[in-house]
Amino acid sequence: MSKYAKLFQLIEKAETITIFSHIFPDGDAIGSLVGLKETIKASFPNKSVFALGTNVDEFVPLVGKLDVVSDEVIASSFAIIVDVANKDRVEDQRYLLAKSTFLIDHHLFVETFTNETIIDNDKVATCEIIAEFIENENLNISPLGATALLLGILTDSGRYLYNPTGAQTLHLSAQLIKKGADLSKINYELSKKDINKVRFRGYLLTNFKTKDGVCYIKISQSKLKHFNIDASDMSSYVNHLGNIKGYPCWATFAEDIHGKIYVELRSRNINVNQVALKFGGGGHLCASGCRLESFKDVPKVINELIKAIKETKA
Amino acid sequence: MSKYAKLFQLIEKAETITIFSHIFPDGDAIGSLVGLKETIKASFPNKSVFALGTNVDEFVPLVGKLDVVSDEVIASSFAIIVDVANKDRVEDQRYLLAKSTFLIDHHLFVETFTNETIIDNDKVATCEIIAEFIENENLNISPLGATALLLGILTDSGRYLYNPTGAQTLHLSAQLIKKGADLSKINYELSKKDINKVRFRGYLLTNFKTKDGVCYIKISQSKLKHFNIDASDMSSYVNHLGNIKGYPCWATFAEDIHGKIYVELRSRNINVNQVALKFGGGGHLCASGCRLESFKDVPKVINELIKAIKETKA
Repeated sequence: MSKYAKLFQLIEKAETITIFSHIFPDGDAIGSLVGLKETIKASFPNKSVFALGTNVDEFVPLVGKLDVVSDEVIASSFAIIVDVANKDRVEDQRYLLAKSTFLIDHHLFVETFTNETIIDNDKVATCEIIAEFIENENLNISPLGATALLLGILTDSGRYLYNPTGAQTLHLSAQLIKKGADLSKINYELSKKDINKVRFRGYLLTNFKTKDGVCYIKISQSKLKHFNIDASDMSSYVNHLGNIKGYPCWATFAEDIHGKIYVELRSRNINVNQVALKFGGGGHLCASGCRLESFKDVPKVINELIKAIKETKA
Repeated sequence: MSKYAKLFQLIEKAETITIFSHIFPDGDAIGSLVGLKETIKASFPNKSVFALGTNVDEFVPLVGKLDVVSDEVIASSFAIIVDVANKDRVEDQRYLLAKSTFLIDHHLFVETFTNETIIDNDKVATCEIIAEFIENENLNISPLGATALLLGILTDSGRYLYNPTGAQTLHLSAQLIKKGADLSKINYELSKKDINKVRFRGYLLTNFKTKDGVCYIKISQSKLKHFNIDASDMSSYVNHLGNIKGYPCWATFAEDIHGKIYVELRSRNINVNQVALKFGGGGHLCASGCRLESFKDVPKVINELIKAIKETKA
């Protein structure tokens, strides 16, 4: 039996289904939660389905609020966890109460913590997996659910920019629009910007420095405070310094409230992970991070990045 | 006979085909030129096909160089003009020498200047029309041609951001990737940034002003010179001030080398065209431009924008 047929069968058997995702839910988490709930509701109208989670205010205009349920409901349910690789990152640990559990995820495998799984690293978003499930099993979905799934695909793929975006990503997106996904509304909600954050971007683009192929910026805590930005938010800003011709690496060094430095390292084809590892951090080949005790160590990191660039060229 | 069948028949009949597009070719122009050439070459290997145009250096890494041909070749050819609404905007006016002419375009109709036409305003790019032609007539295309067509769809739709992007746009994009379009290479080429232009963006985002719902900036000629930017280039920068929460209109005022002011006006849902018209300009409902004699008139334009915002709310 295919993995999708198995999931279909387990949903068919359950009366109550609860859906969980990760802490600090992003577009793919909330998209998967709401998209899967709307799929099950539209395909099996007699089942009780609950999508659980918090802190999704930003996405409420697009997909509505999430559900709140009692321990008893979870205990009587088939729990589906979406878009999570580590059990500790499941936001609501009450998933452990459920009768049985199923994971749908697109991250690299970390650990087994559910009875069954669909893990597919060839998908750019968990929402893409759910969209393929809908197509393969010929399921229904509401326009709201289709919008939720398209939201997850757009955010996790960076508008079809990141690998592994492929023909199937675009094909499934087209199918979701045919089922009522409101691309124009998603575009509008995602394009809305906060004036403070725009001015902070201006600060980054005006004050960054360059050295031997590296674009970087040191940002003091007082400057962050001025723009109302958290040092840990740099992962969503570092790429504003990216893909500049002649500068294969880019980095941000942001001072937190304790004086320690959040470091984000990025590149297109240079191994910055090896640099992060040297300073006790880690991540992906071209997107890594670490922490420093103070700004004093910044030149050391820059020098390691320059070394990595030279090694790649050599 | 369908419009696509008619085009197919005319291509089938011709021995030599020349393809023309507009002055200052953009991604959709070069994508249509190369995409259509590669379609005809792959589907009718015995025909001579030439895609004509200049000034496309920026796109050469993706789609190669364009062709140069003699007047005699054009005179013996069936000429297809792509992505042009006005005859004066055809870059190489020698299309008039051709035996017969055909226009493929997605702009609003301006004038008839070819024997036959396919004009489809419901397509976000002329490349999307050509991709639909391929699908409808079951034609072949090389991976190079598929890459060219996807380039045009991505640039003219702003990565699927602008209307009328729809299910068909994403479906045809998926088909092009299946035929070998290199999305990852396009993403890379389009994401490369010039450090001067990045710093100019920093200048815009750091120095813009706000007044009653309008974000705007006045940019002196000396500042433009410093960043090596032309006043007429503002249409590609104005949207950096766009979609900020609480600011439904945004505008740039850039001083040219003669001291006159290039004005770009944008909004999401306010009629800025009526404002542009008052100052002798024009354009689209939410994207218009005009010229001013000097910076002295800027407050007048801002006040008209504020009035337009109030009218929309009232």
